[in-house]
Amino acid sequence: MSIINLDYISGNPLLPEVQEAMIEAIKKNYGNPSSLHQLGDQARTALEKARESVARLINADSPGEVIFCAGGSESINHALKGVAWAKAGKGRHIVTSNIEHNAVLKSLRRLKQMDYRVTSVPVDQHGLVNPDDVARAITDETILVSIMHSNNEIGTIQPIKQIAEITKEKKVIFHTDAVASVGVVPIDVRDLGVDLLSFSANQFYGPAGVGGLYIRRGTGLWSLIDGGAQESNKRAGTENIIGIIGAGVAADLALRDMDARLSHLKKLKAKLLAGLREKIDDIHINGHPETSLPNLVSASFKYIEGESIVLMLDEEDIVVSTKSACASGSLRASHVLVSIGMDFADAQGTLVLTFGREILETDIDRFLEVLEKVVTTLRNMSPLYRKAKES
Amino acid sequence: MSIINLDYISGNPLLPEVQEAMIEAIKKNYGNPSSLHQLGDQARTALEKARESVARLINADSPGEVIFCAGGSESINHALKGVAWAKAGKGRHIVTSNIEHNAVLKSLRRLKQMDYRVTSVPVDQHGLVNPDDVARAITDETILVSIMHSNNEIGTIQPIKQIAEITKEKKVIFHTDAVASVGVVPIDVRDLGVDLLSFSANQFYGPAGVGGLYIRRGTGLWSLIDGGAQESNKRAGTENIIGIIGAGVAADLALRDMDARLSHLKKLKAKLLAGLREKIDDIHINGHPETSLPNLVSASFKYIEGESIVLMLDEEDIVVSTKSACASGSLRASHVLVSIGMDFADAQGTLVLTFGREILETDIDRFLEVLEKVVTTLRNMSPLYRKAKES
Repeated sequence: MSIINLDYISGNPLLPEVQEAMIEAIKKNYGNPSSLHQLGDQARTALEKARESVARLINADSPGEVIFCAGGSESINHALKGVAWAKAGKGRHIVTSNIEHNAVLKSLRRLKQMDYRVTSVPVDQHGLVNPDDVARAITDETILVSIMHSNNEIGTIQPIKQIAEITKEKKVIFHTDAVASVGVVPIDVRDLGVDLLSFSANQFYGPAGVGGLYIRRGTGLWSLIDGGAQESNKRAGTENIIGIIGAGVAADLALRDMDARLSHLKKLKAKLLAGLREKIDDIHINGHPETSLPNLVSASFKYIEGESIVLMLDEEDIVVSTKSACASGSLRASHVLVSIGMDFADAQGTLVLTFGREILETDIDRFLEVLEKVVTTLRNMSPLYRKAKES
Repeated sequence: MSIINLDYISGNPLLPEVQEAMIEAIKKNYGNPSSLHQLGDQARTALEKARESVARLINADSPGEVIFCAGGSESINHALKGVAWAKAGKGRHIVTSNIEHNAVLKSLRRLKQMDYRVTSVPVDQHGLVNPDDVARAITDETILVSIMHSNNEIGTIQPIKQIAEITKEKKVIFHTDAVASVGVVPIDVRDLGVDLLSFSANQFYGPAGVGGLYIRRGTGLWSLIDGGAQESNKRAGTENIIGIIGAGVAADLALRDMDARLSHLKKLKAKLLAGLREKIDDIHINGHPETSLPNLVSASFKYIEGESIVLMLDEEDIVVSTKSACASGSLRASHVLVSIGMDFADAQGTLVLTFGREILETDIDRFLEVLEKVVTTLRNMSPLYRKAKES
């Protein structure tokens, strides 16, 4: 039996068309896009084609507003640190939310070590930021607001457009971490009104280690990587042309197939949610019931630990994650779950189930069947569970 | 007639074995090395194998001293800014040389904007740093010395080991930009005694957009990209696993074939130098006559412009560069050539010729033949040349 991958967010399998394009690029052995000679021309053409594809996917005014980099984390670091450094003369205050990705949290922690101040607004029990809280947090010293588009652990999609209206009025730069959204749900940077937007190709079936930053024309920020004049002088270093070509093809297909993919994902999500609620007691579904990613379900199973569920499912060739990919290395309770008011013990029993185009409804059936057994087994071993049921 | 590539430094063509490994990686569709489940295991194993290969190539004490990143520029930015930020409490002074790569120059320019001070030591007419100058430049405030291993425009290899003895004695962290050296000439970080060393896979027939930083155990520096716990918590972001696998194979082959490649390169270089001197007057060969990269010749042709030579050679399907790849986008006179005492006008007529394993002696013959014609044509059109010959 083949593996059922319900951890798409950790690593989307490459699309066949993306694989083909990357293999062709490897065989073509492209030169350096910065070279003035003909070997450079071919690489430059391929690079700019990919940039146009990504610009189209997010509806940027022009491809020149998109720079490529090594992934979502670099993009986020670039946005946050780049604005903080460039605007230090104006102020040193940044507004964010309590449920941001580690790349945001830790970039801001660094900036605190550099004498920046950070205000973090809370979220409600569904993980939603209140735009009024953002408005209240902004002071004359505020240079940047960074609120994620969708949360990578519970799926909640934030009211980015409303927040952008506030930041625009207050003349503060607005960055949104849209890594979990771009290529999954429709993203239109013009409609959203953000100044900076981070994305990762791997979330829409492109290669890992390739991402980018949308920089609205006129947004002033420093480079994170200084050196050569690549990427309109905003990000130095010879480009990962093979990966970028893959990202471009992935962007084209994400745009073309958006509707079909969404309808497939919504069907899977509905089935998964219904099955979880039907088969398993003492369960809590996290995230906003409506405004949420279509490819993600976060479920907390009382009395047991997520790590144990992951390991037992793995033995049955079903892969899932306890939380977002980038945090898997660390074993602390998720700050996101704590922020939506979950208690520490319950947060431990959480799975983040993410899925995509190769997942079938029969895979969901099999998952639910195995999960039911695993949860029963683990609960029967759990002193917490016995104690709760005895009382 | 196929293209003769004498601009290897801008983009090494991938080795067939590297291509194969990367294509296999694409087809295998690896997961995320940070995932706890089986899809993560395979990726993690491949990642650590590549790390071991690179550690072996530079003779690091342990693979844990090598982190992967998106290339030489990121690696250099990480080293310089990371040390500067981490050690600001001790001092804010950095020592470097006048002929460093743009990634070093511009990183240091950024740090100056953050109130760091930089002392840049001169080089002699061959591009050599005098270790005594470095020793004299170090003060109680000095936290970092950054001197490149070899120069990417003129090829001169610096006395890194002697400089390391000085920095060790003075307890200052020593970074060397070895991007143009690693995989080309033998590099042994233990013998060199450096604390930090930057490299790029593309300089040894691995993919562009993949590089790394050697961090001697115990060297304290901040991350450039904060977020997830990847790369021993030193560089966040899901790894470019396809590229890293290619880099690992390229490192294995660089180590295995080092002697054979060196002997091939030395033969080409000798032939090229002899031919240039024989066929063309008013020429100057830049860089150190002995201590120099075996795959690079920098030649300045009086009275004419490098750009014109590049374009005319391109028409004959011979690709060369006027200076290093990363600077090609900008058209100013090379700071390296100015630093070795060349006057501005002569610096304009410079070609950087770099070559590698697929270049044959017959390619050098053809290049010399075409170059002779091109130089004659351009000089006949040059008022400068006529004036000089009339006087």
